[in-house]
Amino acid sequence: MSQRVKIKQILLSDSTNYEVTVKGWIRTFRNNQFIALNDGSTNNNLQVVVNEADLDPALFKRITRGASIAVTGEIIPSLGKGQKVELKTKQLEILGDCDAEAYPIQPQKQSLEFLREIAHLRFRTNTFGAIFRLRHALAFAVHKFFNEKGFVYLHTPVITASDAEGAGEMFRVTTLDLKNPPRTENGDIDFKEDFFGRSTNLTVSGQLEGELGAMAFGDIYTFGPTFRAENSNTARHLAEFWMIEPEMAFYDLKDNMDLAEEFIKYVIRYALDNNREDLDFLAQRLVEEEKNKPQAERSEMGLIEKLEFVLNNEFVRITYTEAIDILKNSKPNKNKKFQYLVEEWGTDLQSEHERYLVEKHFKKPVILTDYPAAIKSFYMKQNDDGKTVRAMDILFPGIGEIVGGSQREENYDKLVRRMNELHIPVEELYWYLDTRRFGTVPHAGFGLGFERLVLFVTGMGNIRDVIPFPRTPKNAEF
Amino acid sequence: MSQRVKIKQILLSDSTNYEVTVKGWIRTFRNNQFIALNDGSTNNNLQVVVNEADLDPALFKRITRGASIAVTGEIIPSLGKGQKVELKTKQLEILGDCDAEAYPIQPQKQSLEFLREIAHLRFRTNTFGAIFRLRHALAFAVHKFFNEKGFVYLHTPVITASDAEGAGEMFRVTTLDLKNPPRTENGDIDFKEDFFGRSTNLTVSGQLEGELGAMAFGDIYTFGPTFRAENSNTARHLAEFWMIEPEMAFYDLKDNMDLAEEFIKYVIRYALDNNREDLDFLAQRLVEEEKNKPQAERSEMGLIEKLEFVLNNEFVRITYTEAIDILKNSKPNKNKKFQYLVEEWGTDLQSEHERYLVEKHFKKPVILTDYPAAIKSFYMKQNDDGKTVRAMDILFPGIGEIVGGSQREENYDKLVRRMNELHIPVEELYWYLDTRRFGTVPHAGFGLGFERLVLFVTGMGNIRDVIPFPRTPKNAEF
Repeated sequence: MSQRVKIKQILLSDSTNYEVTVKGWIRTFRNNQFIALNDGSTNNNLQVVVNEADLDPALFKRITRGASIAVTGEIIPSLGKGQKVELKTKQLEILGDCDAEAYPIQPQKQSLEFLREIAHLRFRTNTFGAIFRLRHALAFAVHKFFNEKGFVYLHTPVITASDAEGAGEMFRVTTLDLKNPPRTENGDIDFKEDFFGRSTNLTVSGQLEGELGAMAFGDIYTFGPTFRAENSNTARHLAEFWMIEPEMAFYDLKDNMDLAEEFIKYVIRYALDNNREDLDFLAQRLVEEEKNKPQAERSEMGLIEKLEFVLNNEFVRITYTEAIDILKNSKPNKNKKFQYLVEEWGTDLQSEHERYLVEKHFKKPVILTDYPAAIKSFYMKQNDDGKTVRAMDILFPGIGEIVGGSQREENYDKLVRRMNELHIPVEELYWYLDTRRFGTVPHAGFGLGFERLVLFVTGMGNIRDVIPFPRTPKNAEF
Repeated sequence: MSQRVKIKQILLSDSTNYEVTVKGWIRTFRNNQFIALNDGSTNNNLQVVVNEADLDPALFKRITRGASIAVTGEIIPSLGKGQKVELKTKQLEILGDCDAEAYPIQPQKQSLEFLREIAHLRFRTNTFGAIFRLRHALAFAVHKFFNEKGFVYLHTPVITASDAEGAGEMFRVTTLDLKNPPRTENGDIDFKEDFFGRSTNLTVSGQLEGELGAMAFGDIYTFGPTFRAENSNTARHLAEFWMIEPEMAFYDLKDNMDLAEEFIKYVIRYALDNNREDLDFLAQRLVEEEKNKPQAERSEMGLIEKLEFVLNNEFVRITYTEAIDILKNSKPNKNKKFQYLVEEWGTDLQSEHERYLVEKHFKKPVILTDYPAAIKSFYMKQNDDGKTVRAMDILFPGIGEIVGGSQREENYDKLVRRMNELHIPVEELYWYLDTRRFGTVPHAGFGLGFERLVLFVTGMGNIRDVIPFPRTPKNAEF
């Protein structure tokens, strides 16, 4: 056989009349003649033409949907519609059979819910092929962006003894025998006997460790798994998800916003430039899906249009206080259409409020800054007004909060005072406070939930469809 | 103040006589005149020249080792040795003070053991600056290599219900109340009540899920944290470490070896091309360190020489059976110098045997293939001899096994038979077996422990020094 060539390469080229070997899986077999062959290098299939008369009947019968084959033949111009070239078979070998009846992936449309149950096979569909190639492209773009800017990729720990950040419920990590754990004299679990000699959890954020890196390298980023043991069974929550957390020395809140906006636009641009076919496929998918919806519920923009729109518009930047004023005076607030009416300064914004600002009022991504200290984390830099902090949240249409960040409090005394107010154990976080004792600098950072970004770029509606094997309450399959 | 410029950019340029602002941390302050300023963009410092007479005495006193400052001034040619340019201060601001006496990082040489205890600050030393910039470069090179080859980066799950692979001891993940866990009627822990409705652990490998991806995308790779709850307190083991696991459809063992060799050479070449200064620093560090050793224990090659050597030589490829013959007839075996004498075929190789092959016999990286089935995992492809499998381990000087991989058993019947022999629950792994039921293909893959690679490239001796915050028995600090 000649050298194996990937289908993407064949389809990208205009050459014809050369011999190749291809290997892949049969997506469809039409008219006992046309095999649509996919090898995963692209969502597009290569049309492989077989002549029944040339093949052993026993072999011919094994050409079924889902089977894997190796074919050698000649690439020739295609007379059919839908493809420029096709492969004229000289030699065909079955690598792996597939009983098309038993095969869970069927040619008719299958629901996303069902495909979630066979997540080990759903990669083989066009939809999930496109989604996970885009996920790859976005992940690569993240690394490329930060590498070009001289950031250091820091692998912050997944197992942590620190439970001080209070970002959410945590999973315990242990090697103790649950049936009969060692106990102290007063009956408590004796974590001194545990693997790490103390109680440990799965991290909810790499930020605090990230700051340690920024205080040496200047600019760092993390990109790793983070965890929340929250019993949230929604289309937007996962128990295990990937987060990107850059942290920059010598950055103030404005620098932080500039970087976040540049970053998001960069990765979206990268996807548009490098994965246009996957995006076109998903855009068309969205159109089909929305045909079943009433006109009023359909997206105002197509997927590509929406991505271009984000690239071509500056994000609106307003303070929390300004946002509250807009919301108080908004129609849905006055007409009591909001579930939670906006009445006074200090209240946390609900998803409906964020969506109103982004989707109705500004019709653009919005960066909200300077939130009330009471609803934000202890490490955010305190403004001089004594009541707000230099936080920033970036709100996206359809997604809500896609980025949360802040300038960090670099003043040791202010930080300790705030920690004491919130009963955060100062001694346990001595290492974090050391950065404020020894050459502290103004600095800032943010976190971006990677799956939220993939949701936005793919136009999918459920976060479980943009991570390979979702972990959610009562579900850790595969 | 003018726009802040990173020190790396200033030092890379030959320009002089322009004004800049730099921000960073004071590494040293000599003769009340010369500040060595570092901002993390490079290990090299910028010499900042201050004139005591120009500064407020109170400000001048605060110029101490470890303090952070912003300086505006003119870049001029330097008359001193060791640098081409220096910064003549016009304006200097202290951003964060540092009590040089209390500061744990001291100018005299500090032991790696001590620096491990202050891992939150060790990034600020030259050694750890170089190590973690190299770690970044190697991580980026990993993504770049696979992206260029069209591999899809797959985020396999960290939390897993599968404990079937048997790669090692696992950490339990739970939200149950350890003091008073729910129990079934017969007194067992009732994991139905746990967060995921079943018993879950931290993954030891993403390979099995990776294979699911390869059966759709052709080529995938993982790069994420993996875990071993082994009580190994050695310089080569971590409880949490990052692993790279590519998995390729239509690859046989030879293709697998070719890819692994190309991959390792690519990332080492990338480090040499992009981080030469960091490598030169670590090479010099190694020379200094080895001065205290007897001649016989010193490395035969310098660090750079060793890396170039790997690039310029083909890895030796021999079978396990050939290796056993070499070892049986080796001097240390005949003279009974090995701790474990090599007597019969089938025995697992010890570190001393691997090192003999690599460091003494071949003096090159070695790929050993076709190991006895009995000492390898269930999923490896069975050879026709009925006793060996298509495994490959890559052995490196000083490191030992840096890569472990194999062609996978793609035949459903053979795989199930082997699983039954080893009492691996076939029902639980139905999803893994489905890839052999529906369009199975020959495929292969390997795993590379990222920290072992960083260890090799940096020339460091302890794996705890090449990961930001090591997790080891009784230690989960920071």
